[in-house]
Amino acid sequence: MASNGDDNCNANANVWRFKGNGATSDAAAVTLRKLAFGMFKNCTMNSGKTILFPTPGEPSAHPNFRTCPEAEEAVAAAARSGMANSYAPSPGVFKARRAVADYLNGELPTKLKPEDVYITGGCNQAIEIVIDSLAGNPAANILLPRPGYPHYDARAVYSGLEIRKYDLLPESDWEIDLDGLKAAADENTVAMVIINPNNPCGNVYTYDHLNKFASIAPVITLGSISKGWVAPGWRVGWIAMNDPNGIFISTGVVQAIEDFLDLTPQPSFILQEALPDILEKTPKEFFDKKIKAMRRNVELSSERLKDIPCLFCPKKPESCSYLWLKLDTSMLNNIKNDFDFCTKLVSEESLILIPGVALGAENWVRISIGTDESVVEEIFDRLKGFYDRHTISKEAIKLNGHAINQIVVSVV
Amino acid sequence: MASNGDDNCNANANVWRFKGNGATSDAAAVTLRKLAFGMFKNCTMNSGKTILFPTPGEPSAHPNFRTCPEAEEAVAAAARSGMANSYAPSPGVFKARRAVADYLNGELPTKLKPEDVYITGGCNQAIEIVIDSLAGNPAANILLPRPGYPHYDARAVYSGLEIRKYDLLPESDWEIDLDGLKAAADENTVAMVIINPNNPCGNVYTYDHLNKFASIAPVITLGSISKGWVAPGWRVGWIAMNDPNGIFISTGVVQAIEDFLDLTPQPSFILQEALPDILEKTPKEFFDKKIKAMRRNVELSSERLKDIPCLFCPKKPESCSYLWLKLDTSMLNNIKNDFDFCTKLVSEESLILIPGVALGAENWVRISIGTDESVVEEIFDRLKGFYDRHTISKEAIKLNGHAINQIVVSVV
Repeated sequence: MASNGDDNCNANANVWRFKGNGATSDAAAVTLRKLAFGMFKNCTMNSGKTILFPTPGEPSAHPNFRTCPEAEEAVAAAARSGMANSYAPSPGVFKARRAVADYLNGELPTKLKPEDVYITGGCNQAIEIVIDSLAGNPAANILLPRPGYPHYDARAVYSGLEIRKYDLLPESDWEIDLDGLKAAADENTVAMVIINPNNPCGNVYTYDHLNKFASIAPVITLGSISKGWVAPGWRVGWIAMNDPNGIFISTGVVQAIEDFLDLTPQPSFILQEALPDILEKTPKEFFDKKIKAMRRNVELSSERLKDIPCLFCPKKPESCSYLWLKLDTSMLNNIKNDFDFCTKLVSEESLILIPGVALGAENWVRISIGTDESVVEEIFDRLKGFYDRHTISKEAIKLNGHAINQIVVSVV
Repeated sequence: MASNGDDNCNANANVWRFKGNGATSDAAAVTLRKLAFGMFKNCTMNSGKTILFPTPGEPSAHPNFRTCPEAEEAVAAAARSGMANSYAPSPGVFKARRAVADYLNGELPTKLKPEDVYITGGCNQAIEIVIDSLAGNPAANILLPRPGYPHYDARAVYSGLEIRKYDLLPESDWEIDLDGLKAAADENTVAMVIINPNNPCGNVYTYDHLNKFASIAPVITLGSISKGWVAPGWRVGWIAMNDPNGIFISTGVVQAIEDFLDLTPQPSFILQEALPDILEKTPKEFFDKKIKAMRRNVELSSERLKDIPCLFCPKKPESCSYLWLKLDTSMLNNIKNDFDFCTKLVSEESLILIPGVALGAENWVRISIGTDESVVEEIFDRLKGFYDRHTISKEAIKLNGHAINQIVVSVV
C-alpha cells in the first residue's frame, strides 16, 4: 500500500500486525474437499428433497457398503487395550508397518521389509509426504494424470513443484497417452504419478501397459484402507518404498520422508494398533459381497443412463467405486459446462456430484456408486428429473414450456 | 558441484533426476520426536536393563495413569456405530466442534460457537495449522517462550516465520520476563505463544500475570485430550478462535486456517465421533484420582532428588506431568552438558530423558512423571546409580575408583 496519508481510513483489521497466509488458498482451491463441501452452499432446499452427497462409507440403512464387523471390532479392541495411548514413533507402529508389508508382499516379486513401510493418516497424507519430500529443487516438475485425483495437484502447488499433465485416453480404455507422456517429461522431472486402479476412470492397467513406461524406476506405493474397507473417515494408510537397489536412500528421499514424518500429524495409534487385525482378519466374503453389489450397481447405472443421454460412460469401471461420465452440454438447455451442471443439480435436486473440472477434465462428471442400490436409484431418479427439465429434445422443450407456464400461473 | 568432468565418478544416485527435499531437515531437527526417538540409538543395552522411556499413556501394569473406561468405550462405540466411516468435513465433525465449544465455554466470559472450533489431529497439528496460517508475510516474526515446546519452533522454521524468544524466569515461579518480551516484539510480530499450564516448567500463570500482556489481543486456544485423558496417541485436539470482534475474520486468518484444513490430514472420524462422549462422560473421579497420584509422584520425586544433588527443581509443578530440572554439570565427572548427560544416561542406564537444549534451555532436563509410582521409583533408581558413578564428590570418587577396579579385575 502506498503511504499516502490515508492509512487512518483503514479500520479495525489494520491495527493488527498479523494477516492470514494467502499462499495456502491457491493450493486449497483445487482440493476436492473445498469443492465438494463448497457445493453445499448451492443447496437451496427448493427441491424439497434431502441433500444427497453419495460418498464411500456414508451411513446407510442397508449396509452393502458398510465396513465389516471384524474391522470395527479391531478398532474397538485397540481402544480398550491400553496399548495405543502413548505417542507412536513417527514412521508408524512397528506391528502396523509389518502387517502392511505382509499384506503387499502377496503380490510383489521383491519383498518389502517392515522398515520399507511408513504409516500415514490415509492416502491423502501419504501424498502430502511424498510430494513434499520430492520438492527439493525449485525447477523440479512432476507428471500427473489428466483426469486425476486433485490432491496431488494441491500438494504440488503447495510444495512448489511444477505440474505437468499426461492424458488418459477414453478411446483406449483409459490407457496412458505414451507420446504425450514422453513429451511432458524432461531432465527436471522428479516423478510420475500412476493411479491404479484409476480414480476417477475406474480402469485397471494391464501389466503390459505398465511395462511400457514403469519397469526401470524405483516405485513408491501409496495405499489405504479407505476404499477397500469402505472406511475413508478412519484415516489410516501407508507409504511403501519398493526400492531393491536403495536408490531412494542414496538420493536422500528416505531421509526427507523421515524428516517430514517428524513434522507432520501422526495417524491415531488406535487405528495403527488395529491395522494388523483389519488387514488379516477381514474375511474374503466381505470383499466378495461388496464386489458383487458393486457389479449390480454398475449394471443398474448402465441401464439408467440410457434415459439420460447427456451423460455417457465410455468404459464400465472394473475397479474403483466411481462412474466417470462424459457430459454433453449441447443436449441441455441453459447449462454452460460441468461446473454449471453440478451447481444447478445441487440447487434443483439437492444432489451433490463432482464436476470433472475438479479432476482436470472439463465436461465430465464423477458419481460415487459405492453405496446401496436404493441410493444409486435415487441418484438416477434425480438426474433423470434434472435431464428432463433441461433437455432440448422436442418432448423436453414441450415439457419445459409447460413447466414454465405452470410457474407463471402460480406466480399470478 | 563444479562441472569438472568428474561427473561420471558419481555412481548410481546421479542417474536419477529426483533427490530428497533437504529443506525439511532443519525443521525436523528441532522436533522432540526426532530427538527422543533418536536417543534410542544410544542405547547399548550394556546396562542389562530394559529401555525406560517415560511418556504419557505408556502401557502399564498398575494403571493410575491409564485413560478412563468411559473414553475407551466412547471410541469403541464410535467404531461400531457405522456413523464415522465416511470422509469428515475439513473443519471437523459438527457435533465434535459443538462439544469442544461447550467444554471450553465453562471457563470463558465470551462464549464460543461450534463454528469457532476446528478439530485437529492433536495439539501438534493445531500448532502446524495456526503457525502456517500466520506466516503470510516473509518479514513476520513470532514470539516463543524459552524454555518451550519445540514443535512451535519446528513449524515456524518450516513455514519461514522468524522466531524470537522471550524468557521464563525460574526465580519468579516461571513468570514471563515482561521487559524481554517487550524488547523482542516489533511491528512485524504476528503472534505470541503462551503455553499454560506450562510445558516444560509445570507452572500455571495467575490471572494478574496474564493480564499484564494478554488482555487486548484476540486469542487462539489450542488444546487436546492428550495430557488430560493421558491419551496422546489417540490424536484428537482443537483450535478455538476466541475472537468476539471478528478480527481473525477481517485479517484473513480464519480463511487461511480453513484453506489449510482442506490441504492437511484430517483426524480420524472415529475419534471425532467419540469426542463428545469423551468430554462429557468422563467422571470427575478419574481426574481426581490422577491428580492425587500426580501429587504423590511430585512429592516422591522431591524426596528422591535429595540424593541426586546435580538435579535441582526450582518450582514443584502445579499442573503438567513433567519435572523441569536444572542440571549442575560441575558436580559431575566427564559430563559436558545436558545432551551429553542424557546420551550417557541412555547408554549406561537405558533411561531416555529429554535434554533441556531440545526445549531451548541448555543444562536442564525434562522428566515425565505422569506415570505409575513404581516407574517413577525406577527412574530415580537409575538416575541415582548414574549420579553415583559420575559425581565428583569425595565418596563418589572412592566409589568410582572401586567400580573401575572391579571392571579391571573382571577383564583380567
